[in-house]
Amino acid sequence: MAKILECIPNFSEGRDQAKIEKIVEPFRKTEGIKLLDYSADKDHNRLVVTMIGNVDSLKTVMIDAIGIAVDLIDMNVHKGEHPRLGAVDVVPFTPVRNVSMEEAVELAKELGQKVAERYNLPIYLYEEAASEEKRKNLAEIRRGEFEGFAEKIKKSEWKPDFGQAELHPTAGATVIGARMPLLAFNINLDTDNLEIANKIARKIRHSGGGLRYCKAIGIDLTEKGIVQVSMNMTDYTKTSLYQSYEMVKFEAKRYGVNLIGSELIGLLPSQALFDVAEYYLQLEDFKAEQIMENRLLEEL
Amino acid sequence: MAKILECIPNFSEGRDQAKIEKIVEPFRKTEGIKLLDYSADKDHNRLVVTMIGNVDSLKTVMIDAIGIAVDLIDMNVHKGEHPRLGAVDVVPFTPVRNVSMEEAVELAKELGQKVAERYNLPIYLYEEAASEEKRKNLAEIRRGEFEGFAEKIKKSEWKPDFGQAELHPTAGATVIGARMPLLAFNINLDTDNLEIANKIARKIRHSGGGLRYCKAIGIDLTEKGIVQVSMNMTDYTKTSLYQSYEMVKFEAKRYGVNLIGSELIGLLPSQALFDVAEYYLQLEDFKAEQIMENRLLEEL
Repeated sequence: MAKILECIPNFSEGRDQAKIEKIVEPFRKTEGIKLLDYSADKDHNRLVVTMIGNVDSLKTVMIDAIGIAVDLIDMNVHKGEHPRLGAVDVVPFTPVRNVSMEEAVELAKELGQKVAERYNLPIYLYEEAASEEKRKNLAEIRRGEFEGFAEKIKKSEWKPDFGQAELHPTAGATVIGARMPLLAFNINLDTDNLEIANKIARKIRHSGGGLRYCKAIGIDLTEKGIVQVSMNMTDYTKTSLYQSYEMVKFEAKRYGVNLIGSELIGLLPSQALFDVAEYYLQLEDFKAEQIMENRLLEEL
Repeated sequence: MAKILECIPNFSEGRDQAKIEKIVEPFRKTEGIKLLDYSADKDHNRLVVTMIGNVDSLKTVMIDAIGIAVDLIDMNVHKGEHPRLGAVDVVPFTPVRNVSMEEAVELAKELGQKVAERYNLPIYLYEEAASEEKRKNLAEIRRGEFEGFAEKIKKSEWKPDFGQAELHPTAGATVIGARMPLLAFNINLDTDNLEIANKIARKIRHSGGGLRYCKAIGIDLTEKGIVQVSMNMTDYTKTSLYQSYEMVKFEAKRYGVNLIGSELIGLLPSQALFDVAEYYLQLEDFKAEQIMENRLLEEL
């Protein structure tokens, strides 16, 4: 079975179209990689690429793309509104199918080691791949940015996970890691009372004593004249969509409020919805291999 | 977006392993085709192949495989328990993803015309591709079988849809068509009273006044000490799994009986389960392109 991940590398080039196209080229050409999107922001001076692919293809294509970006981008002359540490600023891997978090972490580490050696690029591991708690947070690692990092990198507590404790002279450093996909799941209520949406949000989210992998806030949809419980599901394999849905319904009941619809924003792995169907149909022994399309993915 | 179908051709050779392998070979080698299964039955003297693939690959591979089978199989010496009309007995196409029934019918017709010309093989279209009501039923077309067909094919009412009104001397005739995938969906009840399962089955199935694309019977699971409502969903795009589930639950209630689990047997298209998740989560504007894995399938 093919092990499929999503990867969303961020490069520090959002203005020079010729350079952008050169960086994107390997994502178009490498077999086993499906380029989903790339968008360059001039103000941020940053390029964000979204792709999915199997483990081997992702490793190959990221080694190529990082090499191209290291060649083309000089951080000494880079200006942009978005914080950044290097030419290849951050490379997150996200399990999509048949991949455990451990395998995603392994991929992050292998890529990190490889590009550190090949391009003389210091690498930090973050999120699930982090070597210690305080390196989990990207903002924490990146603080000081390229300009301030020549000093920071020399401190023993900020020794890179791979490569030497010295910034690449033009490409800076790169942060590589693994994390679960974030599912944006919103539920609309048949009321315009924002306080009710907020009360429900507080009750169902992790920070308020609710579901472990659910963040939630109340939102006023002024144009529609209703309110919404807007959620980020941070690990759908542990906290399922149906759990959030049922818990919102359950809390809404005490206010005499009904759910009138929901939406999933952006991309998600099929398993997130299969889990929902399995729950509501009380399915036993369902296997993802029973899905015809999944059989086509086996050889990718 | 790739248009993906399932195809399950039946060949009249279940004993000669060398011939079987030659017939199966194109399904292994053709790009865009995923061979899921093939099984040869000696008593039936019949080979059943299951594959999925895109429209173009399926056309190519079936033209090749039919040519090989026409060369290798002589119906004049074929004996087997299963009724059969030709070397390539029947070729059903089933929409899986991004394919309408009209397109599946179109594929059946294009293949039929092509192989009729190329191999001088009379072709009948059946099920959704049938040119008239009485040709929908495979058994109806096949009656008389290879041995009796030299006469039947000459009757104007049994003129083939493609090719001349004369059996191929060794390969007979072939039936090609399109139909929806059949979903086998069983729901277990917390009772051992078969009469209750039968009453529920009669109430929810099409023939009893229930759901249009649902067949159902009650089954005794003696070993487990429970009974089951066993269903065939004949068009999941029109009668959804959640409709059957909810209707079984609804009918079971009047007997004080609960649903204790369900099972889906065999392969099914992902959309059948997405429909379930969409219903129960009240999802609005969900699109199959939001599923990450589906983006990988686009280029197949």
